Amino acid sequence: MAKAAVLGYGTVGSGVVEVLDTNSAEVEASAGEKVEVKYILDLRDFPGDKHESQIVHDIEVILNDPEIDVICETMGGLEPAFTFEKRALEKGISVCTSNKELVAAHGPELVRIAKEHNCSYLFEASVGGGIPILRTLNTSLKHEKIDSITGILNGTTNYILTKMDREKIGFATVLKEAQNKGYAERKPEADIEGYDACRKTAILASLMSGQYVKYEDIETEGITKITQEDFAYARSLGMSIKLLGMIKKNNSGFFTMVSPFLIPSENPLAFVNDVFNAIVVHGNMLGSTMYYGKGAGKQATASAVVADLIDLVIHKGSHMDVNLTDSPADLSDNGSYVHRFFVRVDENSEDQAKELFGSSIEVIESKDVFGEFAFVTDLISEKDFKAKYAQLVKAKGFLREL
Amino acid sequence: MAKAAVLGYGTVGSGVVEVLDTNSAEVEASAGEKVEVKYILDLRDFPGDKHESQIVHDIEVILNDPEIDVICETMGGLEPAFTFEKRALEKGISVCTSNKELVAAHGPELVRIAKEHNCSYLFEASVGGGIPILRTLNTSLKHEKIDSITGILNGTTNYILTKMDREKIGFATVLKEAQNKGYAERKPEADIEGYDACRKTAILASLMSGQYVKYEDIETEGITKITQEDFAYARSLGMSIKLLGMIKKNNSGFFTMVSPFLIPSENPLAFVNDVFNAIVVHGNMLGSTMYYGKGAGKQATASAVVADLIDLVIHKGSHMDVNLTDSPADLSDNGSYVHRFFVRVDENSEDQAKELFGSSIEVIESKDVFGEFAFVTDLISEKDFKAKYAQLVKAKGFLREL
Repeated sequence: MAKAAVLGYGTVGSGVVEVLDTNSAEVEASAGEKVEVKYILDLRDFPGDKHESQIVHDIEVILNDPEIDVICETMGGLEPAFTFEKRALEKGISVCTSNKELVAAHGPELVRIAKEHNCSYLFEASVGGGIPILRTLNTSLKHEKIDSITGILNGTTNYILTKMDREKIGFATVLKEAQNKGYAERKPEADIEGYDACRKTAILASLMSGQYVKYEDIETEGITKITQEDFAYARSLGMSIKLLGMIKKNNSGFFTMVSPFLIPSENPLAFVNDVFNAIVVHGNMLGSTMYYGKGAGKQATASAVVADLIDLVIHKGSHMDVNLTDSPADLSDNGSYVHRFFVRVDENSEDQAKELFGSSIEVIESKDVFGEFAFVTDLISEKDFKAKYAQLVKAKGFLREL
Repeated sequence: MAKAAVLGYGTVGSGVVEVLDTNSAEVEASAGEKVEVKYILDLRDFPGDKHESQIVHDIEVILNDPEIDVICETMGGLEPAFTFEKRALEKGISVCTSNKELVAAHGPELVRIAKEHNCSYLFEASVGGGIPILRTLNTSLKHEKIDSITGILNGTTNYILTKMDREKIGFATVLKEAQNKGYAERKPEADIEGYDACRKTAILASLMSGQYVKYEDIETEGITKITQEDFAYARSLGMSIKLLGMIKKNNSGFFTMVSPFLIPSENPLAFVNDVFNAIVVHGNMLGSTMYYGKGAGKQATASAVVADLIDLVIHKGSHMDVNLTDSPADLSDNGSYVHRFFVRVDENSEDQAKELFGSSIEVIESKDVFGEFAFVTDLISEKDFKAKYAQLVKAKGFLREL
């Protein structure tokens, strides 16, 4: 019998307990032994709750109990989660977590501490919610040379973009509606400004490179500037607009970015709608594979935490390698990264556009947009593009094309 | 240093050697030691080939070499592959394979033999080519109660259906074109009659149930009856037509089927096009996740074989459980399985259709089809549907709706 403690009895924490209750036979068969939740740490009491008797308010009770094999940290936020995880690992107690903020900020350090104390630190649920992407990168795809990871990593923004596209409603209206439905937070910045996707991109980039990619170093743009006009053009191009976390490794360097992208319909990410997340991984032998599912939600996220918990029980007393090190990643300047850009411009600017970007630019018209047109550039570096775009007198915005 | 033998130097076998060559550093890092291909078994010689010196013609050389840790069987077919794998496992040599025919026919027996001899039998590449679906079912999703697995498991038929839909060309023409391009075999029955998808469905069903589902017991229908009219209606319904392997477990039983289905656009399988494969798994906690990638092809399939090979090297001297047993699965009669059916019928049959299927049937017209109409039934069991359909005097065909 393995004994676990759950830190935080909120949405994900109570989901973890629910998964362990509901699927106890499957969990036992997978882990090779029964898994019991001995403690649930929370500041609150839960009178009448089925697990009331397991609630404790003091982390010391958990850390000083030699019976505890594994801890699931589902509190979120940096502190006190960081201190609690660190102290557990220093005692040789393995930890799994859904806390993307903490993993993005201190993951490499926590993995090192786990290694030093012969225990493990796993964080499947921190990226893509219930989608088993990190375990797949660490097992099935570990022998591939991964040259890109591109993902829809935030369900709230994908929901907003899907609704803007389908129902032809503006960003502000859809955001308000999403907030009313509880799909978006009252303070929506973490989602709509791309900060959440940025942390997940940092974790994926770190695992892909085996080095530490700081989330602060990732150029991040949210979806607040996306308009109905953008979608109208996207439809005439047969494309979708999605907020992507993008990581590319090629001969010119290692690039990371969070930004809205126009996505051609040949790319399976173009059809990932509503609150779903999906991650496309491209390997040198395997080609592209995509992993799709619920990027958030109580039970799906909890299921991913439990998958880690089971792995930790199976590997008690040993360190599971997760290819995440302290050594800082050598990110290239995005200025040299090359792609196509979609540009909107005033209707009388075609001459200037062609002068700047060449006569081969692809001009796009939409029957739903008046007084302007758009064009798609040839392949051009971010740096060159921005220099030219700055000279475009009547520019009305641009998007990157995947 | 681990020593491997590859049986069969054809498409997949030479791919395995190529992956081990190209990604040798990554393979070593993943396996924890170097992996060397000591022998390649093939009837042919390969003069001038980089690996000419490793070619042997006699299986005894491999089976009698105590240095061999692992065997990759990439010959395909039942014999002599079955005998070779069995003899290897009986000697305690772990085996991995891409041979779906053999796994579907003898997988449970081979897993049992591996267990008895403290070695392992893995077959990731037998389903979904490069898509890491089996390992995911056996690790990340092992604690879920899986209630359905639905997959596009054959790239050739998906290519044909995609092309029929996009280019509005008939089945026979597209098949001929696919054969000329090498996407379909000269003898195309294994693909177009659904036999290949049936074997993969049997493997997935066996893993899902932990019991042995015989492929012969799976009701299987191919794509040869799909017409341009079906696609015209599907387009007016906003749906796709795909050949699916379907496994469902619900209160009424455990159902399996290979059949073309109409797929609503909310389902991510609707957008899986060309030669790509994808598998949707639904778990009680996780909800739906989808795994997408190349279902065939030399390097992608080989990459999946190598992922298994690495696992076998890591777990040398122990048995890796794969949840596949000899005990026969208790499949329910599909007659009691309930879904909606799409039915095409002569234009003067509306009264009889409503008499048989109720006045609530949804009537569909297509601007591209004349002299007939179609309708979608309410939920109805296979058995009841077929009884009523048999009475429909001017019926022109039907499809199941997912």
